[in-house]
This record gives sequence, structure tokens and C-alpha cells, in this order.
Amino acid sequence: MARRRQLYEGKAKILFEGPEPGSIVQYFKDDATAGNGAKKGIITGKGVLNNRISEHLMLRLQAIGIPTHFMKRINMREQLVREVEIIPLEIVVRNVAAGSIASRLGLEEGTRLPRTIIEYYLKNDTLNDPMVSEEHIAAFEWATAQDMEEINSHALRINDFLCGTFQAIGIQLVDFKLEFGRLWEQDEMRVVLADEISPDNCRLWDMNTSEKLDKDRFRRDLGRVEEAYQEVARRLGILPESGNHEIKGSEG
Amino acid sequence: MARRRQLYEGKAKILFEGPEPGSIVQYFKDDATAGNGAKKGIITGKGVLNNRISEHLMLRLQAIGIPTHFMKRINMREQLVREVEIIPLEIVVRNVAAGSIASRLGLEEGTRLPRTIIEYYLKNDTLNDPMVSEEHIAAFEWATAQDMEEINSHALRINDFLCGTFQAIGIQLVDFKLEFGRLWEQDEMRVVLADEISPDNCRLWDMNTSEKLDKDRFRRDLGRVEEAYQEVARRLGILPESGNHEIKGSEG
Repeated sequence: MARRRQLYEGKAKILFEGPEPGSIVQYFKDDATAGNGAKKGIITGKGVLNNRISEHLMLRLQAIGIPTHFMKRINMREQLVREVEIIPLEIVVRNVAAGSIASRLGLEEGTRLPRTIIEYYLKNDTLNDPMVSEEHIAAFEWATAQDMEEINSHALRINDFLCGTFQAIGIQLVDFKLEFGRLWEQDEMRVVLADEISPDNCRLWDMNTSEKLDKDRFRRDLGRVEEAYQEVARRLGILPESGNHEIKGSEG
Repeated sequence: MARRRQLYEGKAKILFEGPEPGSIVQYFKDDATAGNGAKKGIITGKGVLNNRISEHLMLRLQAIGIPTHFMKRINMREQLVREVEIIPLEIVVRNVAAGSIASRLGLEEGTRLPRTIIEYYLKNDTLNDPMVSEEHIAAFEWATAQDMEEINSHALRINDFLCGTFQAIGIQLVDFKLEFGRLWEQDEMRVVLADEISPDNCRLWDMNTSEKLDKDRFRRDLGRVEEAYQEVARRLGILPESGNHEIKGSEG
């Protein structure tokens, strides 16, 4: 049996060549890292949950007209996506001060920002993903002005939609990270949402208890990490396929 | 004799109340700091030279239509400037990679940037003057969109003019830092260049020898710091008033 070709192994996912040209299989691992790999661990069942959560959110975003790389979920840990040329930027959308912006600008964590702020970070592990501005992006041609216009417009729509989605299930969307890629179709280039949307790259706080329901539980050793991911999946109405993953409250 | 009122003491300058309303006396010290005050020292005669160099460059910039706070030089260490409301941003204009951008983006110092890059840093010593983007500036209302438009347009013109000025005397303008302020005149607000332009906040490299003629000599313990400032003044055609300042080559 021919082993399919591995294209790339990241911190939380592995990419394999897909069954047809232009398709890729995204495999979700349970591996978790923080501080650019300084801290490593396993969050049991995370890959299964993120595969489901990201499928759910990508499909909903497609339904409001946001182009994404998502094609379909294949099994518990894999989904089929379109092959795109990844734009080497992490797009961070922030509604509330938390994480690096809080320390960098001296804001108390939890302070609502005067307005939504979009930040850009260069995807470069060696340099520790430095923050960059549209000036740097234009000068080094990491993205064109048109790419950035599409990215910013998509990012704000995604933020509005996700704020609504999470607010409806009692969760505050504090911030999240997106990645985009370029896709050619009939000689036309489109910028599409890529990567994943999950508690790995969102900050999600329970609106009543302020409890963190995201990767900060791992980053900051807050315990009950698996349970937080399960809680998000449960509230989104996602139940995993059969398997040995206890989803707290899923029996209700 | 009434002592004039001190308004502010910075790392390199002291501001006193000026003789008429809306005016301020800017006193240039010999004190030098680096790394946000982590390193301290004295560059003998620096205040005298920077007062002259900044006068010279501000007057030339006014002549091409750049509004500045500069009114006139009073004596060896003091100049009279218009009182402005300082916009709390350091505007850094870069032509060649050096200093923080080189380490941050992994560029070799001395690499010409693909185009001129403008960066913004929040003036906040406690936070170590963090880099910020136009997004942060707009969200926290540190400057308006119109302020930023004027600042960017002035900064690029200043860069062009100073590149010409220094190129003509065998010096490459690597980068420099500007500050701007708001000035009200007949109910109209203008953004004007403030602070100073001197080897304290420019990187100036000899075009033939690549020798640094700026504060990096102090920051990096390269020696002959005073001589570098004198050399810049000498090449600009500025000779200090009488005093005990040996200007190398000034006898020529």
C-alpha cells in the first residue's frame, strides 16, 4: 500500500498530498506548543475536536460568503482542503486586550479595546513571529495592497460573524489568529481563509464566569485543558464521532 | 533675578518656559543615554553641536516648506521653539536596515531596504517605546487619520531632502527618528516637525569608509564619539561659536 506523501509537519497539524491535484489532507494532531515551541505537551483529543470545530466554523463562514480553503471533513482527525499559496502572515484580530498586546501596551487583560484592532505578524519561527506593519508587508512584498485589502475586509467580517456565533453560546471572543492563502481559479486569483479556527488560535472566555476556554489553559498551566476544548465543541452543538473521548456534558 | 520655569527635563534636553506665550526654550545637554536609559554617559560638546546642527537642518527644511517648531537659536546651547502639543509617537524613517529592524526581521545591517519604510513607536519609557501600527494609533486615538496623513507626507519629504543634504557631503542617511506636534494658528491646526534632528537620532554612515558618524558610536562603545558629531557639523559647514570645543579639521 502506497503511503501518501507528507508535505509539511507543523506544530499542531500535518499536511499530506490529497487524492486529487490541488487538494491537501490536513491532519490534526493532539500536540500543543506555546511560546514558539518553548513549551510542548499533548492535549488528548484536541485534534479530533479542532477538526470538528474548524469544519463547523469554516462551513458557517462559507455560508455568509467568506471564501475558505475548506472542502470536507474526511474522518475524525482529517479534513480535505484546497491547496493554496500561504501568505506568510498571521492576522490577529483583537476585541479585548489579552496576551501580548496587554503587556506590550500596558493594558490590563480584559480591557475592551476602543475598537477592533488588526495586527500582523510575520510567520517566521526563527525570528519568533515578529509583529510587522503594512509598511513592512508592502516593502518586502509579503502581500500586495490588494491582498491586504481583501484580508482586512474578510478579517472584519469573520470577526463580526464569530462574535455573534460565540456570544450566542455564552462565550466572549477576545481575539483570534487567521491565516490566508492565494488560490487561482480560471486565471483569477482569490484570497481565501486557510489554516483552522479553533480554541488553539482563539481566546474564548465564558461570559458569566470569565473562565478561559482556549489554549491559554495550556499556556498558563490552568488545568482542565481538554475539558475547555470539549466545552466549546459541546456549546457549538458538535459531538464527536464515536471514540474514547469523554465529552463532558455530551450526554445531556 | 527670577529663574525661568523648567517645564520638562528629558534625556538630552531641558525645556523652559519661553519669553513670550506659546514659546519654549530648548536647552541641549551633553547627556547621552541608550537602551531607554540603561546606558548613560556624557558626550562632551554634543549639546552645542546638536543645537547648531538641528538649527541648520530645521531652517533648510522650512525653506522647502516643511512646517517646524523652530523659531531661532538663542545661544550655544539654547534655541527658541513654538510650544506644540507633542503627538506621542516616534516616527522612524528607514532607508537601510540597521538597529532594531535588522534583528527583528533578520536582515543584515547595511542591507538597502526594498523601499523606504516608516515605523511608529509609542513614546512611553515604562513600556520601552513599543512599536505600534496605524491600527493601534487610530484605536487609542494617539493621532487622527489626518495627523497621520500629514506626518507621513512630511516624513517622506524630509527623508528625500535629508538624503540629498547628507549625500552631498559624503554621508549615507541610514535612518532617523522624528517627532511631530500640533500647533493652533487662527483656529487652524497644523502638524509641525518638533524635537531635533541631529546625530542623536539619525544613523549617518560615511559613504566611503562606512564609518558611523552618529550615536551608535556611543551605544556600541566604538570610541571617538565627540569627533563623529564634530565631523558631521564640519561637513554641514557649521562651526561652533567660540568655546573650548576642538573641532577636528575645522582649521582647514
